[in-house]
Amino acid sequence: MLSTTSPDLELEVPKGAAAVTHTVVSCRDREHVVREDELAVEEPLEIRLGGRSLAVTMRTPGQDDELVAGFLFAERVIAGPDDLDVIQHYAGPEDDPRIGNVINVLLRRPGPVLEKRLQRNFFTSSACGLCGKATLDAIDVELPPVAGHLAVSLDLLYGLAPALAAAQATFGRTGGLHAAGLFDAAGRLLALREDVGRHNAVDKVVGHALLSGGLPLSRHILMVSGRASFEIVQKALVARIPVVAAVSAPSSLAVQLAQAGGMTLVGFLRERRLNVYAGHHRIAPPPAAETRSEPHAG
Amino acid sequence: MLSTTSPDLELEVPKGAAAVTHTVVSCRDREHVVREDELAVEEPLEIRLGGRSLAVTMRTPGQDDELVAGFLFAERVIAGPDDLDVIQHYAGPEDDPRIGNVINVLLRRPGPVLEKRLQRNFFTSSACGLCGKATLDAIDVELPPVAGHLAVSLDLLYGLAPALAAAQATFGRTGGLHAAGLFDAAGRLLALREDVGRHNAVDKVVGHALLSGGLPLSRHILMVSGRASFEIVQKALVARIPVVAAVSAPSSLAVQLAQAGGMTLVGFLRERRLNVYAGHHRIAPPPAAETRSEPHAG
Repeated sequence: MLSTTSPDLELEVPKGAAAVTHTVVSCRDREHVVREDELAVEEPLEIRLGGRSLAVTMRTPGQDDELVAGFLFAERVIAGPDDLDVIQHYAGPEDDPRIGNVINVLLRRPGPVLEKRLQRNFFTSSACGLCGKATLDAIDVELPPVAGHLAVSLDLLYGLAPALAAAQATFGRTGGLHAAGLFDAAGRLLALREDVGRHNAVDKVVGHALLSGGLPLSRHILMVSGRASFEIVQKALVARIPVVAAVSAPSSLAVQLAQAGGMTLVGFLRERRLNVYAGHHRIAPPPAAETRSEPHAG
Repeated sequence: MLSTTSPDLELEVPKGAAAVTHTVVSCRDREHVVREDELAVEEPLEIRLGGRSLAVTMRTPGQDDELVAGFLFAERVIAGPDDLDVIQHYAGPEDDPRIGNVINVLLRRPGPVLEKRLQRNFFTSSACGLCGKATLDAIDVELPPVAGHLAVSLDLLYGLAPALAAAQATFGRTGGLHAAGLFDAAGRLLALREDVGRHNAVDKVVGHALLSGGLPLSRHILMVSGRASFEIVQKALVARIPVVAAVSAPSSLAVQLAQAGGMTLVGFLRERRLNVYAGHHRIAPPPAAETRSEPHAG
């Protein structure tokens, strides 16, 4: 592991916060330092219409009333502000963990569009890992932690980003595709898939492994080209992938799920730099002792 | 408009293509050139399980079988390849527009997880604009084109990106948030919202306008920090926003919807450069004539 004194503190997110501080192991070449990093908060928001669970969307808390109004408008459930009666956070018992993440909507006049939509059972998600879970209860992952035996070196991790980029032939042309790469324990790229949706790219590499008899992926590494959200870590967890790396930042919920799943989560992996957000114990051999300090490696 | 000779050709996407060529007006400072640009293809994929529409996801065509296998596995509908009997594209009449975008799945043994999931009516979407539309028919937008009278100058457009970036206080800290900004016809930032989900950020700015009595937004400009997908353009269309600008690339479906909705779609807006993907007629006054040629402004 990176250092026996490096913390792997459980991330707790204050209710309603849009950003949260997390202790990370920040590596540059063969050096590392433990420091605080700011994460964007990702939390599920359950939208209830007339008491009925309509949708769960993963969002950053704040302006939830605007989010819900804009969402219902975009879905043409409401035609304007006059159709809204109440948009209000659920006010349950103080210790209810759903407080802050459930919003109740009452309409003044449920129109024909709404009736039509409800017949279609419409649900939403910013994360395919959530896939239409209509209630917060439905997003519990209910999986045991992944196995702990895989060890990866910093050099191996540093090699993933250029390998992924080199293989992204399409990316250079359109600039519009996300990539997911599946690597073995030696850092060899086994499969690369691209898609306009990052979660689709991950589904494709895992689906490739599934169809070719390669599951479970308990000695593999998943790398994604952008950010790491809940959905990415969730899909890796189901496939038993112990190490997930991303070119950009993870969300708070990605870190929390990685911790709960015993996974290693690496972010800002570029040019022999990276941050370890969870599970630094898999990173071996130990590099040189801490020698530097800086505010942000992103 | 940029040039009376500039094309605004309807984009057509060949079945199954992952990238497609589109004619764009590429601007740099006060100069512009008409050239070909490659777009990532975004198309809906309807997943049918035992003949029943289960989900629509927006994806880039290619490896659809892997996508569906990985998706069903991540959702724990299947536990492995042995649970799958058939994954096969719908083979309807040759002229059926759904050909290539519908996939049929038959399971060897629908397990208890599936039963539980189906009770929850789970649906998926990489795009909130799609929000659980369970069938392809449900994604038809069915809206008249936006009004055509707004005119914006290149200088005004060039000013949006720095204004958005300057206002993104949170972004600098976490690197993990998408931003959406609503601007008036003079390029003044009216509202900025950030979120882990880009579509949430758009819902928030539109919801803000809705709750403060500012709808419709027929003389406004929406700018997003990343890519422009179908969902972003769809939400703008419903709010009657005539001009959408993005820091990065649009998808093919974003361009097609912008064209169908009579909207102006701008991409790769950064440092006095931009590409116009649809509706260049709103961009005035005419800049200097074409003076340069280059392969890609992205």
